[in-house]
Amino acid sequence: MKGNQSIEFQKEVYVLGAASVTGQKEGEGPLGAVFDKVVKDPMFGQKTWEEAESRFQGEAAGLVLQKCSLKPKDIRMVFAGDLLAQSIASCFGLMELNRPVYGLFGACSTMGEALSLGAMMIDGGYGDRVLAMTSSHFASAEKEFRFPLAYGNQRPPSSSWTVTGSGACILSKEKSPVRITGVTSGKIIDFGLKDSQNMGGCMAPAAADTIAQNLRDFDRIPSDYDKIITGDLGSIGREILLELLKQKDFDITEQYLDCGMIIFDPEKQDTNAGGSGCGCAAVVLASWILPRIASGEWKRVLFVPTGALMSKVSFFEGQSVPGIAQGVVLEYCGKENDHGLF
Amino acid sequence: MKGNQSIEFQKEVYVLGAASVTGQKEGEGPLGAVFDKVVKDPMFGQKTWEEAESRFQGEAAGLVLQKCSLKPKDIRMVFAGDLLAQSIASCFGLMELNRPVYGLFGACSTMGEALSLGAMMIDGGYGDRVLAMTSSHFASAEKEFRFPLAYGNQRPPSSSWTVTGSGACILSKEKSPVRITGVTSGKIIDFGLKDSQNMGGCMAPAAADTIAQNLRDFDRIPSDYDKIITGDLGSIGREILLELLKQKDFDITEQYLDCGMIIFDPEKQDTNAGGSGCGCAAVVLASWILPRIASGEWKRVLFVPTGALMSKVSFFEGQSVPGIAQGVVLEYCGKENDHGLF
Repeated sequence: MKGNQSIEFQKEVYVLGAASVTGQKEGEGPLGAVFDKVVKDPMFGQKTWEEAESRFQGEAAGLVLQKCSLKPKDIRMVFAGDLLAQSIASCFGLMELNRPVYGLFGACSTMGEALSLGAMMIDGGYGDRVLAMTSSHFASAEKEFRFPLAYGNQRPPSSSWTVTGSGACILSKEKSPVRITGVTSGKIIDFGLKDSQNMGGCMAPAAADTIAQNLRDFDRIPSDYDKIITGDLGSIGREILLELLKQKDFDITEQYLDCGMIIFDPEKQDTNAGGSGCGCAAVVLASWILPRIASGEWKRVLFVPTGALMSKVSFFEGQSVPGIAQGVVLEYCGKENDHGLF
Repeated sequence: MKGNQSIEFQKEVYVLGAASVTGQKEGEGPLGAVFDKVVKDPMFGQKTWEEAESRFQGEAAGLVLQKCSLKPKDIRMVFAGDLLAQSIASCFGLMELNRPVYGLFGACSTMGEALSLGAMMIDGGYGDRVLAMTSSHFASAEKEFRFPLAYGNQRPPSSSWTVTGSGACILSKEKSPVRITGVTSGKIIDFGLKDSQNMGGCMAPAAADTIAQNLRDFDRIPSDYDKIITGDLGSIGREILLELLKQKDFDITEQYLDCGMIIFDPEKQDTNAGGSGCGCAAVVLASWILPRIASGEWKRVLFVPTGALMSKVSFFEGQSVPGIAQGVVLEYCGKENDHGLF
C-alpha cells in the first residue's frame, strides 16, 4: 500500500507482451501503421456486431500469445471486460481460450482495471502469467448506448467515436523492458453531468481525482512522469481535466496525452471530440505507448483509462453520468531486459 | 497457487462481518428471520427499480460497516457488481461510499468473484479491509432479461425467481471465526443450452467444472467439506450438477446445498426452480452460511456462486447461455476468534 489509494509493487511485475487488432477506420488514422492487425470487414466475418467484437477479442488474445510464444494453458487467469450489457463480447470472445476468467466492468477504464488487478495477481504470486484485455466496437456500442447505425443520427461536436478493436497484454514475472511499478485505484466521481454525448466532460473529474491522488500517494510532481495519458477524454474532456488539476495545484499540460485524441485525425476522419471505448486505450497502449517505454524514449508513464458509468436505462431515467479512472504506473527498466517483443 | 486453477492463502484472510438486506418475498421465505433487514417496499422509496436496487446496495454496505464499527474510510477498496447492463445498480449504489471501486461482472457468480479477488487483496497486502458485495432485484432483472412485469408472462417450471436483495462482506486481516483459505477460479463453460428460462441447466456444467477442479487442486474428497453450496442452480440445475459430478467420479449428494433452493418455499411462494440473481448467494452467505461456520457447526464449506452469461441481445441473436462458477473455501477457525458479529 502507498498513500490512501495506491499500491507500490514490491516484486517485479512486467508487461511481457501486447497485441492490438483494430478496424479499418483505426487503421486509416495516425496510428494505423503500428497496430498488429487491421481488419477491413467491420463484421469480421461474423453474423452480428456483437459476435464481431468477440472475434476481435479472440484475435487479440491469440496474437499476444503467439507473439510471446505461449499457449492458452500458460495463462493462469484472464481479466477482461467490455462495454456491452452483461459483457457478452468478452464472454463469447474468450470462451475458446478455456482459461479461468474474472469478468470486469469499468466502462472505458476497463484496461486500467485489468492491468491493476492483473499486476496484483502477479506481484501476489497468484499466477505466473495473467492476460489483461478489453475491446469495443463502434457499431455494437452505438446500438448499446445511442442510436442504431441505420438511423443516421447527427453527432454533436462533443461526441466521441467508439474505437473498433481489442488490445491485450500479458503480465508476468518474466523480464521485459516494461514494468508495472504501481497502481492507483479509482473512485466513482459524479459532477452531475447528464449528457451522454459529452462523455469526456463526464469522465474528466474522475481522471483529475485519480491523477492527483497518484501524485500525492507516490509523492511525485507531474514532471516525474514523461507522459500522463488518459484513455478517452477527447478534446473537451482534456480542457476540463487540465483546469481541474490546476485547481488542485498540479499542472500536467506538458506531460499530458489522451489516447482518444491520438488515434483519429478529427479533421479528416470526422470523429469530433476523439476516439473512445474500452478498445481505444487498450490498442493505443499495446501498440504505441508500450513500444515507446520499451525503447527507453519514455522512462515513466502514468496510464489512466477513464470510464463513463451509464446505461441506456440510467440515461433514460434521468441519472447523471459518473466517471471512474484507474491509474497504472509503467516504467522502463533497462536495455538489458529488451526481448524484442514490442 | 495450488493445482491448476486454485490459490491457497498463505496469510490469514478473515470475513470480518457481513450484512444482508432483502425484499418482502425473501423475508416471507424460510430464511426470513435471519436477514438483517427486510424492506417491504419493492421500490425502497425510490422512483425506479434500478434506483431501488442501488439503494439495497447502499443499505447493505452501510449495515456491514455499522456492524463492524467501521467507517467508509476504513475500507481500502470495494469489489462489486450486479446483473444490470453496465452494472448501474453498483455504480449508483456505491458512489456515496466515496471509496475506490473495482467493478465486476460475473452474472450471479459475482459474489464468488468479489470474495476471491477481495481475499487476494488482503492476502497480498494491498488493503487492510475490502468490501465485497453484490445485489439483484426481481423487477429490474425481469426488465433487463425477460419481460416487463406488467406483461404478466407465464413462467415455465424451470424458471427461477430473482432475489431482491443485497449482501455485503468485509474481508480483513483482523481475526474472526471465519477464514477464507482458498479459491478456485472458474472457466466459462458452454454446453450449448439456449434456454434463458432454464438457467440452472445452463450453469450446472460450470459448477461441476469448478467443484471438480477444487477437489483435484486441493486433493480433497467431497466429505472433506461439511457443505458444498452453489449459488442459484435451483432444482433442475441440482440434478444436472450431481449427475455431471458423478461422471467425474465425485458424489457430493450428501454435502450439497443450493442457496436458490433454500431461500424460497417453491410450493407456497410459486418460485418454480428456486431463487436466483447475484443477491441470492450473497444474502444467504451473509446471514445463513457464515453464522453456521462462525458457530463451528460447519468446519469447512465450499461456496460456489454460479453465473449464466447472457444478455437480451445475445439471447435474441441465438447465442447459447454459457456458465461460470467461482469457488471460495470458507473455514471455521476457532471459538477463540469469535467476535460475536455473526
